[in-house]
Amino acid sequence: MPNTTPFETVEFVGAGPGDPDLLTVGALRALQGAGIILHDRLIPQAILALAGPDAQLIDVGKAGFGPSTPQERINDLIVHHATQGARVVRLKAGDTTLFARLDEEVAACDAANIPWRILPGITSAAAAAAALGQSQTSRGRNSSVRYLTGHDVKGFADHDWAALARPGSVAAIYMGKSAARFVQGRLLMHGADPATPVSVIENASRPDQRVLAVTLATLPAILAAADLDGPALIWLGLPPRAAALSHTRKEFA
Amino acid sequence: MPNTTPFETVEFVGAGPGDPDLLTVGALRALQGAGIILHDRLIPQAILALAGPDAQLIDVGKAGFGPSTPQERINDLIVHHATQGARVVRLKAGDTTLFARLDEEVAACDAANIPWRILPGITSAAAAAAALGQSQTSRGRNSSVRYLTGHDVKGFADHDWAALARPGSVAAIYMGKSAARFVQGRLLMHGADPATPVSVIENASRPDQRVLAVTLATLPAILAAADLDGPALIWLGLPPRAAALSHTRKEFA
Repeated sequence: MPNTTPFETVEFVGAGPGDPDLLTVGALRALQGAGIILHDRLIPQAILALAGPDAQLIDVGKAGFGPSTPQERINDLIVHHATQGARVVRLKAGDTTLFARLDEEVAACDAANIPWRILPGITSAAAAAAALGQSQTSRGRNSSVRYLTGHDVKGFADHDWAALARPGSVAAIYMGKSAARFVQGRLLMHGADPATPVSVIENASRPDQRVLAVTLATLPAILAAADLDGPALIWLGLPPRAAALSHTRKEFA
Repeated sequence: MPNTTPFETVEFVGAGPGDPDLLTVGALRALQGAGIILHDRLIPQAILALAGPDAQLIDVGKAGFGPSTPQERINDLIVHHATQGARVVRLKAGDTTLFARLDEEVAACDAANIPWRILPGITSAAAAAAALGQSQTSRGRNSSVRYLTGHDVKGFADHDWAALARPGSVAAIYMGKSAARFVQGRLLMHGADPATPVSVIENASRPDQRVLAVTLATLPAILAAADLDGPALIWLGLPPRAAALSHTRKEFA
């Protein structure tokens, strides 16, 4: 019975894509009230600075496929600090419930009988669509949208490429930078139009946001030449809206 | 050149699923600074009450498939008030970029040479997954997730049912209440396991949130018997986590 334990509730909080304006009111309150904040490496300083003065910030270093704290160690840290009576916030980039290994951390809390609560955040796909000035879904074009990752636990992820290759298909590819050539190859093999519009959004919502407007044909070459070093999301089937071009730094090819 | 017009920027703001804690900091600021707020019917009073004292609130009444202001009239209202020099916020339930007819309103601004900006919001699928205590994606289970609507402009929406019917498939069905029987039929016809877990989340994140934990086999009957009157999201492939049950009012069958 979680609510009868002496522990504080662990809060799994989505920090959103990086712009502090895209933090939720609840996430802001959680940061201000936390004793311990275990945060991903991708969380910008402008958000970490919103923590209360007594909060201890611990970088657990998950950053895509780079070096990071082992998952078991993160689980242990959450449980350790919660059982010490600390108000623990586990702050994850984007949304807590998308590509964030939330299940393993929640299961660790459950195993230790620690109550928890999940605060969703704005996912980078939404911020990237907003930057393009595009709706993820549109009447007459697509009544569904897919979020997928270029990688899974076994390496390159397998997907329903035939459906993704169809005209009008719209999908966000997370952590897609290193999988771009693989994804392009699979889609073309399944009959996708090489002229399909594709956008690459690096650092969505941040001051250093960049947008590359490409096509399926040009994606890997332009991505390689652009030498992006921030997190990037690929929107398959969504070009930037013309009027969005005046609002943000863009590059076209 | 939007930035050189005399108009204020129209802001398309996602209000999130209903809990004011799930409003973003940027959305809160937009509400406080707005002169005119054109809002969906689904936005709760607790959020509308955050508008500045001089803001004029206009209910444009979009509520699923119920009676609502014609889209052209909403477009006209946005353009009219913006050209009068008002700071216009177009406040949409959930995320502005998902199932929200954003494109038509942005196009109306473009046609009138009015600058705009999009603030994404927390979509109900994320809030519903958080209520279930589940991740939308999970290593070893699913490396993609789909958001779809039960209806499109031509009636019941067509989807890639064969892919959705596969084991481990996870999808959020928006506005799915009235399409539940259709969706169930299509999935079973394509070989889905009748025991596939399905959750129905009514009023996700709100004080009157309800969760029905059902299966694909029992979905239409239990949904009909539950007589939900709020907006409901259906999560295909995601049951509530056991420990989530103690945190929120639930019903099981």
